[in-house]
Amino acid sequence: MEKVGVLFIGALGYIATTVMAGALALKRGAGSRAGMVTDLNHFAGLDLVEPGEIVFGGWDIREGSPRASAAAFLKNNQLVAREIIDAIDDELDSVLPNLFRGTARNCGRAIAGLSHPGAVDNECAGLREQVDKLRSDIQRFRENNRLDTVIVINLASTEPPLVLHDAHHDLDELECSLDENRADLVRASTLYAYAAVAEDCPYLNFTPSNGALIPAIIRMAEREGVPVMGNDGKTGETLVKSALAPLFLCRNLEILSWEGFNILGNMDGKVLDDPENKESKIRTKDRLLGKILGYTPHSSVHINYVPSLDDQKTAWNFIHFKGFLDVKMSLQFIWQGYDSILAAPLVLDLVRLAELARRHGEPGLMPQLASFFKAPLGASRHQLCDQFQMLIDYVNRIKRSKKALANRHLVRGEIV
Amino acid sequence: MEKVGVLFIGALGYIATTVMAGALALKRGAGSRAGMVTDLNHFAGLDLVEPGEIVFGGWDIREGSPRASAAAFLKNNQLVAREIIDAIDDELDSVLPNLFRGTARNCGRAIAGLSHPGAVDNECAGLREQVDKLRSDIQRFRENNRLDTVIVINLASTEPPLVLHDAHHDLDELECSLDENRADLVRASTLYAYAAVAEDCPYLNFTPSNGALIPAIIRMAEREGVPVMGNDGKTGETLVKSALAPLFLCRNLEILSWEGFNILGNMDGKVLDDPENKESKIRTKDRLLGKILGYTPHSSVHINYVPSLDDQKTAWNFIHFKGFLDVKMSLQFIWQGYDSILAAPLVLDLVRLAELARRHGEPGLMPQLASFFKAPLGASRHQLCDQFQMLIDYVNRIKRSKKALANRHLVRGEIV
Amino acid sequence: MEKVGVLFIGALGYIATTVMAGALALKRGAGSRAGMVTDLNHFAGLDLVEPGEIVFGGWDIREGSPRASAAAFLKNNQLVAREIIDAIDDELDSVLPNLFRGTARNCGRAIAGLSHPGAVDNECAGLREQVDKLRSDIQRFRENNRLDTVIVINLASTEPPLVLHDAHHDLDELECSLDENRADLVRASTLYAYAAVAEDCPYLNFTPSNGALIPAIIRMAEREGVPVMGNDGKTGETLVKSALAPLFLCRNLEILSWEGFNILGNMDGKVLDDPENKESKIRTKDRLLGKILGYTPHSSVHINYVPSLDDQKTAWNFIHFKGFLDVKMSLQFIWQGYDSILAAPLVLDLVRLAELARRHGEPGLMPQLASFFKAPLGASRHQLCDQFQMLIDYVNRIKRSKKALANRHLVRGEIV
Amino acid sequence: MEKVGVLFIGALGYIATTVMAGALALKRGAGSRAGMVTDLNHFAGLDLVEPGEIVFGGWDIREGSPRASAAAFLKNNQLVAREIIDAIDDELDSVLPNLFRGTARNCGRAIAGLSHPGAVDNECAGLREQVDKLRSDIQRFRENNRLDTVIVINLASTEPPLVLHDAHHDLDELECSLDENRADLVRASTLYAYAAVAEDCPYLNFTPSNGALIPAIIRMAEREGVPVMGNDGKTGETLVKSALAPLFLCRNLEILSWEGFNILGNMDGKVLDDPENKESKIRTKDRLLGKILGYTPHSSVHINYVPSLDDQKTAWNFIHFKGFLDVKMSLQFIWQGYDSILAAPLVLDLVRLAELARRHGEPGLMPQLASFFKAPLGASRHQLCDQFQMLIDYVNRIKRSKKALANRHLVRGEIV
Repeated sequence: MEKVGVLFIGALGYIATTVMAGALALKRGAGSRAGMVTDLNHFAGLDLVEPGEIVFGGWDIREGSPRASAAAFLKNNQLVAREIIDAIDDELDSVLPNLFRGTARNCGRAIAGLSHPGAVDNECAGLREQVDKLRSDIQRFRENNRLDTVIVINLASTEPPLVLHDAHHDLDELECSLDENRADLVRASTLYAYAAVAEDCPYLNFTPSNGALIPAIIRMAEREGVPVMGNDGKTGETLVKSALAPLFLCRNLEILSWEGFNILGNMDGKVLDDPENKESKIRTKDRLLGKILGYTPHSSVHINYVPSLDDQKTAWNFIHFKGFLDVKMSLQFIWQGYDSILAAPLVLDLVRLAELARRHGEPGLMPQLASFFKAPLGASRHQLCDQFQMLIDYVNRIKRSKKALANRHLVRGEIV
Repeated sequence: MEKVGVLFIGALGYIATTVMAGALALKRGAGSRAGMVTDLNHFAGLDLVEPGEIVFGGWDIREGSPRASAAAFLKNNQLVAREIIDAIDDELDSVLPNLFRGTARNCGRAIAGLSHPGAVDNECAGLREQVDKLRSDIQRFRENNRLDTVIVINLASTEPPLVLHDAHHDLDELECSLDENRADLVRASTLYAYAAVAEDCPYLNFTPSNGALIPAIIRMAEREGVPVMGNDGKTGETLVKSALAPLFLCRNLEILSWEGFNILGNMDGKVLDDPENKESKIRTKDRLLGKILGYTPHSSVHINYVPSLDDQKTAWNFIHFKGFLDVKMSLQFIWQGYDSILAAPLVLDLVRLAELARRHGEPGLMPQLASFFKAPLGASRHQLCDQFQMLIDYVNRIKRSKKALANRHLVRGEIV
Repeated sequence: MEKVGVLFIGALGYIATTVMAGALALKRGAGSRAGMVTDLNHFAGLDLVEPGEIVFGGWDIREGSPRASAAAFLKNNQLVAREIIDAIDDELDSVLPNLFRGTARNCGRAIAGLSHPGAVDNECAGLREQVDKLRSDIQRFRENNRLDTVIVINLASTEPPLVLHDAHHDLDELECSLDENRADLVRASTLYAYAAVAEDCPYLNFTPSNGALIPAIIRMAEREGVPVMGNDGKTGETLVKSALAPLFLCRNLEILSWEGFNILGNMDGKVLDDPENKESKIRTKDRLLGKILGYTPHSSVHINYVPSLDDQKTAWNFIHFKGFLDVKMSLQFIWQGYDSILAAPLVLDLVRLAELARRHGEPGLMPQLASFFKAPLGASRHQLCDQFQMLIDYVNRIKRSKKALANRHLVRGEIV
Repeated sequence: MEKVGVLFIGALGYIATTVMAGALALKRGAGSRAGMVTDLNHFAGLDLVEPGEIVFGGWDIREGSPRASAAAFLKNNQLVAREIIDAIDDELDSVLPNLFRGTARNCGRAIAGLSHPGAVDNECAGLREQVDKLRSDIQRFRENNRLDTVIVINLASTEPPLVLHDAHHDLDELECSLDENRADLVRASTLYAYAAVAEDCPYLNFTPSNGALIPAIIRMAEREGVPVMGNDGKTGETLVKSALAPLFLCRNLEILSWEGFNILGNMDGKVLDDPENKESKIRTKDRLLGKILGYTPHSSVHINYVPSLDDQKTAWNFIHFKGFLDVKMSLQFIWQGYDSILAAPLVLDLVRLAELARRHGEPGLMPQLASFFKAPLGASRHQLCDQFQMLIDYVNRIKRSKKALANRHLVRGEIV
């Protein structure tokens, strides 16, 4: 079996911490795998990597340790049973040698404000130098841990939107921008994505930051045979939206307004409290409706920082719709989920499925992963059930080809 | 174009009233067709009957008139614009000659309590006499209005469940039960369904009453070439359930409990306030989850009569689920819809699609209509999106066969 | 009995329309008085003016008629029974001769945008001219209708906050500002309030606009013996807040966060969609909590314009609180009320109680009316039950003094 | 300072466990006192007993230990920080010597089902024997721990309602019933209450069981000078009701329907799932509205057992009300609180205030404690704010009398 490593951008955040703690817990048989899509029967027989076998590491712009992050997460959110945490607390330290200093280059004031002061020098370096530093981090991680595959996942705070220019569509121009140190044309997420693809690492953008998988980098991934996918993990309110909006479509009920109010109190909420970062998030959350419905109802998405909630995202949605003879009716929902607990198993799913795609030599975007993202790149289906069906169809194709392969081997064997 | 008539069981109820008033309004261009599934583009080109061209009639056990029912509905529910109602008020009287005295045979005390006293003699008649009376009502309706097709739709109050015996599975035994006047083996809905199929009328059971489409009558429909379908129109809470439950399934989130509380104040609510009638309803509402999820979480459905709400059904659902590392989270929804406004356009859809099925000579159950029912007979798919896809696939098949037919005609024409 | 007239600022708005239509309906015995506080038993025997006896008029910056406003209100909100409206539709025209062209002087772009183009010249006039025009409108209304008392009520759209200077605290300086045409120091509401008090008319500010009852005008009211009160009618979310916040106080449960999201679609919502106008509203809504609790929890109030809701204000509040051993819990509420239907009876209450205060010769602020306002001027009690008790205590004092007076008259009568 | 002991009926239940664990935690400075009413400033200077100084004990019909109960509570509800529990875990064992075998005499099948099999013999004993056994338990507890005051609090599962006869109104007849072993005339709670009062112990009924403080026992308490109070601690839904209902009253908004749905999964929920026990609970929850409003709207209270929620009581209330011109509007609330976390600090409050009442020689009912109970005995005020004011007034009276006493002492001192 291949040995798989994962590098997180934002390795000290709640999600990365939960992924690492969860993988260690599962290894010891503690805690439920609920929330992991790849634990469903459909995915049996694909030789997916076991969560407990993954080697973790990553970058962060803050000081700290996974162990301290886990302690803070638990202190602020009475969620995970103490037995589970007691069991793995020591082991979290094993990640420490795989942690690298990250970059917040051109990520806006809200993220810069989180940075460790020592990061300043780093930020003055040229873009090319920074890319080289990230690539050598990846190489070090791979070599130190003797890994066959390294997957990079962006879990960092949401950056402000990057306005796309022609330069972002052309790989040569992107290379020039790096050489000419045009920091205004990239964000930190661009540097990470470039470095990952250059190092032959599948790359997953779990955030709304559009600077990561710009068209030029997607081309590069296609050319280099590296699977990549994004944007923005679909964990809560938008997940419900993509399940509910089709109801109105298939009943021919006209949505008049769909208003969403989100409150949360973790680091994600704090960064999103800054209008320029919030802008990225609302874009990926808000465009879904029109794509499912075929028309654009009055709709807005609000995100507010409420510290006392910490990781408990609470979302109220009010859906106003018109039925027969113009009568107005409504559906409301209230979602109360823990962001990191919802995201972590999906991150493990993405690791497993990206490794599968790589093993099968699939370059570029992975549209079969559309159901995992709020704004899936290259995907034309936006209803949750359609997206899930795409994933199942993909998996069945893989299984058939494996079986065909196995049969062929068998036949050959018999011949011999 | 064929001339189509519809007979409602429960012709003075809110739903029948809304269907009739709505069809008249649409004919005058007043009011929106929202909520009519067959108004979606998919259904264009099928020569479906226009709502405004349908001739309406039906049975009821209460005294009254459609006009009085419409006035009562409007008085209790400020819903439909006065312009719409003013426009059609007079025309509602045109239904009067098509109204017949109904039967509440063996329907339980709650429904019997609604009966007009004059109905008593009627109830003493033999079962065979009653069936003959219903058949002659259908014949009269057909002849008086020169109809090509008559469709019968059960919109009556929910009966208590009928315990199914061997006798209900065999058509000969059912005939015997009628001859031997075994009133304990049938409910009113059985007599109506039998009469409809015997008169070659497509029959739709929009209620949870399981006495209507018993296996023997489904066999009879198959033999006679009559399309039938049921049970229980899916208008609100269960509709949302069938859209939301797949979310948990495809995210591998384990549902711990799904509790539903419904409050409503119309006649339906009043009858369901009686435990024996409520039993039927809860059965069709409650079994869905297990069928979608593949396991049966703790779940209960409560229905309470709250007169002040009249037709405004309000449902609160609390969904408790378990995610990664055993963490519990929740989703709640609050549905506020008007039962009759939601049901009426679906009734029009069912009329149109039953007429289509009949025109195409399809006998017995119509599984393509699964998405319209809480407990669709003969259907194996319970997720809303799958059910809708089944309908679209069916429609596309019909269109292709029409096109093929048209092409053949064209070819023949050319040959000649 | 005294003859009472009421002039509305914003006479074509939903609230004024509902007040006028409601008063006419009550006169004919149609419709419930529910929502009128002064209809409670406590208020019997005070000779309060009958709603049906009030003469209505007012100012507006838009073109139109009360009848057209009523029709628009009904078209957009299926609320009031058609019998009620049919009964009074004609009579609404009787208000037409009492309508005057209003002013939106220095009210911000959102309100100016509503103005009729003909209003432009008017806006160029000097402040003193404008005040004189308003005073002559009042005089005309009083004389034409032979009124003993005229009460002025501000129901106009919310203005942006007025930054208070020393000039606003001193009546002489205010007079200078008017003479010197310092339009930057006043808003339209200031001119109306000044004119009302100068004409000996009790003045009620049902809006959050703080330009109306500036300290200088309150002094003027005290000096001239005119009762005045404000600010901002307490009709929905804040009403619930003032009833619920004491629960947490008296149970020693610490409120961590209280987040409020309001959506509405009427003219009020449209104007509040402009950030500078919204600012006024949020100020009166948001300060209540600290005043009740004695500490200031994390709290925010959001207002969003959702046109499809029209007058149906829907508010979701999430209250996060800490209990024993630091455990966090929550209370949520969803308020669905019709703003105009809630406000109109309170406006009638305020007319009746302002007339009572005037009859009893009470000058200046009316703290007994604190329960009617979000930010009651001169009030130290903010819990709803305390405020209501203040009103009952006041009414009982009046009753006792009336009784004492009656007894004295009786004694005198006997002497004679 | 007096030494105070508390005996719980239901000493192994969640509430008793939380009270004991909480008191130990507070003693060590861990955990917040939020939720304790007597921690408010009003109560300073009354020499109330410190929670950490109370000696705990009690009866239960189940086997177990406080430590095991605390572990089960924590396992099922991730609520209290592990530091808090780690700190006091050992000390919980100190309660063990104060635990006695309880009785479930005539408490219905649901409670009997919880009983330890060894309890059977006990149940065969005569009533008088059982009372004597309970009295000797109290004596033992008092002597072993050298207590000045022992307070008995009923935290046991809800019994079915006891139909009150003349015999329950007369103390002599009650004595006869005990002597004649008329088990049908008493429930376990009656025996406990009798024993407590006979042993001069203040008694508090935190449950809805009406068999406890029957009129004869209240008379006995008055005669013996023992303070007693009940029934049914007001911790959640009813607490909110008593704060919200006055809003509608003082705004003259007519409540049409008030429907409450409660779901919970702890032992309380399990016992209440039995219809005969539920009956008691619903009675105390449901009568409040009429008492506050002066009329009785359509109202029902539902309680359902949902195991996955364990101690997290979730309640949805739908309040339908009528406003001006008969327009219907609604308020909904969703309460999510932990029953034991809400109840425990109130139990500590009741201990402190019952000890205060005893110290001041107040016999019989304690109406000043009305705000703590759903159905406060002898209380005429049902609005939460009025009830709280009663408590503050009482406390102020006590303070004044203390001050007067102190002054008198001072004066005497000076004289000497």
